[in-house]
Amino acid sequence: MSGGLFTDFYELTMAQGYLEYGLDRPAVFNLFFRRQPWGGGYSLFAGLDPLLEALQGFRFSGDDLEYLDGLGTFSDRFLHYLEGFSFKGDIYAFAEGDVIFPHEPLLRVHSSLVEGQLIEGLVLNTVNFQSLIATKAARISRAAKGGRIMEFGLRRAQGRDGALSAARAAYIGGAYGTSNVQAARNLGIPAMGTMAHSWVMAFPSEREAFDAYAELYPDKTIFLIDTYDTLGSGVRNAILAGKRLAERGKRFGVRLDSGDIQYLSAQVRKALDDAGLRDSFIVVSNELDETIIERLVAESSPIDVWGVGTSLVTGGCESSFTGVYKLAAVERGGRMDPTMKVSENPAKSTDPGIKDVWRLHDDDGPIADVMTLSDEALASGVEQTFYHPSLDTRRFTMTPDGNAVSMLSKVMEGGLRLAPPAVLDAIRERAASALARFDSTYLRLLNPHLYRVSITENLRALKLRLSEETKKAM
Amino acid sequence: MSGGLFTDFYELTMAQGYLEYGLDRPAVFNLFFRRQPWGGGYSLFAGLDPLLEALQGFRFSGDDLEYLDGLGTFSDRFLHYLEGFSFKGDIYAFAEGDVIFPHEPLLRVHSSLVEGQLIEGLVLNTVNFQSLIATKAARISRAAKGGRIMEFGLRRAQGRDGALSAARAAYIGGAYGTSNVQAARNLGIPAMGTMAHSWVMAFPSEREAFDAYAELYPDKTIFLIDTYDTLGSGVRNAILAGKRLAERGKRFGVRLDSGDIQYLSAQVRKALDDAGLRDSFIVVSNELDETIIERLVAESSPIDVWGVGTSLVTGGCESSFTGVYKLAAVERGGRMDPTMKVSENPAKSTDPGIKDVWRLHDDDGPIADVMTLSDEALASGVEQTFYHPSLDTRRFTMTPDGNAVSMLSKVMEGGLRLAPPAVLDAIRERAASALARFDSTYLRLLNPHLYRVSITENLRALKLRLSEETKKAM
Repeated sequence: MSGGLFTDFYELTMAQGYLEYGLDRPAVFNLFFRRQPWGGGYSLFAGLDPLLEALQGFRFSGDDLEYLDGLGTFSDRFLHYLEGFSFKGDIYAFAEGDVIFPHEPLLRVHSSLVEGQLIEGLVLNTVNFQSLIATKAARISRAAKGGRIMEFGLRRAQGRDGALSAARAAYIGGAYGTSNVQAARNLGIPAMGTMAHSWVMAFPSEREAFDAYAELYPDKTIFLIDTYDTLGSGVRNAILAGKRLAERGKRFGVRLDSGDIQYLSAQVRKALDDAGLRDSFIVVSNELDETIIERLVAESSPIDVWGVGTSLVTGGCESSFTGVYKLAAVERGGRMDPTMKVSENPAKSTDPGIKDVWRLHDDDGPIADVMTLSDEALASGVEQTFYHPSLDTRRFTMTPDGNAVSMLSKVMEGGLRLAPPAVLDAIRERAASALARFDSTYLRLLNPHLYRVSITENLRALKLRLSEETKKAM
Repeated sequence: MSGGLFTDFYELTMAQGYLEYGLDRPAVFNLFFRRQPWGGGYSLFAGLDPLLEALQGFRFSGDDLEYLDGLGTFSDRFLHYLEGFSFKGDIYAFAEGDVIFPHEPLLRVHSSLVEGQLIEGLVLNTVNFQSLIATKAARISRAAKGGRIMEFGLRRAQGRDGALSAARAAYIGGAYGTSNVQAARNLGIPAMGTMAHSWVMAFPSEREAFDAYAELYPDKTIFLIDTYDTLGSGVRNAILAGKRLAERGKRFGVRLDSGDIQYLSAQVRKALDDAGLRDSFIVVSNELDETIIERLVAESSPIDVWGVGTSLVTGGCESSFTGVYKLAAVERGGRMDPTMKVSENPAKSTDPGIKDVWRLHDDDGPIADVMTLSDEALASGVEQTFYHPSLDTRRFTMTPDGNAVSMLSKVMEGGLRLAPPAVLDAIRERAASALARFDSTYLRLLNPHLYRVSITENLRALKLRLSEETKKAM
């Protein structure tokens, strides 16, 4: 698929300008984000594989060029440039599934200025959405404390790709399957589901509906018991049909989709247990999110599986990730010159230059991430001071040991990815093990312990110098 | 494009069951929504054209069938059924761009039970998202009171289709163009944009950056003035470059993307006016939504164009529309038998049967929508009582006149659409004129006057009867 037009219009007008003015020099762009979503303390990096795949196919077709020509804005010379365009840069990135924090370059794009600019929209669109959803899935999975998460969101997702990409990211973050058959097939993950109210209503009675389903799908029956009267007919008919399944050695579930879940799940559990159906399981759904799940789990609600839709596939009350993409350096006079956006709001000033990220550890796990300039080594065994990216009073002194881990690695060179797409289960496993290394106080849903992201003395000095130079120059 | 797998897994298991048990009878499903988003008083119906297009291509490919076969859940007989599957039903719908209210059937699907079930996910995914965004765009456009809305959301949208479909819906709701070049081309709507901070930073100075842009794009220059110092260098350099444009008879704009927009826009307007550049315009961006825009407009901020991204393309704090799809009737014993989901929460009980929707008017515009059973006429000139769908004390008596408008019309017959896709500008115009007919108190952003949606005496009697029968039967 050609996809060059999936870009913001100003990227094209700027690109033509850079070429026109001979400014299409080597440049480095950073993708970073500004703030953790939902008041949390961490996010997961996701979307890298689909992004690299899309970058390799980022082209302008004949139709695309004809359309652009018709706008009257672009020269033949520029259209000719686009005709031969492909992304030929290098990309360094966090691994998919890594735990990420604000300010850090998650992706470093080394290319010509024009190439880096034209792919901005694609990069942000892909990484922002999948990181949002992987993070949401991790929050929801952790809240369920071992309960399983089914992703149910196709019907409430933001468009077709909103559903498909969300299924992928939700799986990375911890969901164990999806209701979305297309996503299940594309990604090789489990397709799953229960039954709808329409099934129950299509039969003369709920009992017949349940019996028919159990007969047809004895190995995967989950009775939806709230169509008419959950604690009356619903659980009664489920027990009748379920007993016959149990006699055949089959395990079944019941699903609650309305009403007070805490009360109903306890009552239903009791009724099933009293009927000798201790092996049956309870699935719940109905506008769940991590806050509701955490509370129900804290109240020991006997829930085995959580079906989550809207909030998992859209992010609910926070529907976008705050990733941005900024110029960090550009070649001037034969060397890469760091650039910095100086904002009146210090938190919105960017960190200049080509940077690496190191994760420092003590015996209990990660304790801080440090951004260094790529041409400085993180000196091991030397006591040094690290600085908050904008708040000057927040600094700390420590001696990095050999356990510092470099977080960025080269994933694309000359426009070609260096490794085939990772297996999705491996990414999911990476996310789970990366999170498990952090002290749980960093992973709390609300008011978490704030993980430190800092800059070195050298990077701080560069920032101060560029900030001063900017003020003088303007 | 084959798209049959874009469905929830349980639709397939239920479909196989209906066929297995000889239950694949004629059925009617309704799409309706439960609640207006963002505390508002109205929504716009959108997504119909793309939905009808997708329905015509809804097929199971050989690869799809092979995948399904491999799951071990489906019989050869069912896979053979899917192999020949296409949607062959009839659809009645509101027109795209119509103003819609909770409970009303927005879409009525008349098909076999299996067909109606298999398309549920596609129907909801398409209509939910586009209606959400069209409604958001209408709220934002109305808040701007004549100011223009640019849709800027590609980088924050939920996936590629999240961006493309959002651009369409935003245009329907009132945006006048998009930054998304692919969307602009696909939809035939204006592509637009300004410049990024990276443009300014790529030049030795802001002044050179502005001059270069104005030289290249004299007819479409919008200077981004907040890279270094908005009220210092930014506005000064814009005035220098802008004066030369003005001398050539060119109109230019400036864009503010950070800081206190109310204060800065007033100061920038004054500086431009003092420089004799009264014809220049001001564009603002930076996490805008209808609430912020309404306040800035109320404060008479001199803003001409609003660039809106995240909240416009994702819905912001409400990221999904509450549309659901429920069985309303099924053939039993030779006649269409109304069905009803009876919920413990009366507001979640469905309205049974095949229904029409009539919009009643007085001299000032629409005053109430009434749902009738399709086999009863809305009696003109006869005083009658109409009832709230669930709150029994909310009823009113009136005499419908000849101005009642039927809202549903047949748009698909036997799986084929009855008209070609509407021109997008016509849909946009319909939305604007439909909204203009309503008293403004219904359109207030918060705490609006609640528009009445009611049911007839006959429909209410049916509801009460089915509710009683359900209780007895279970």
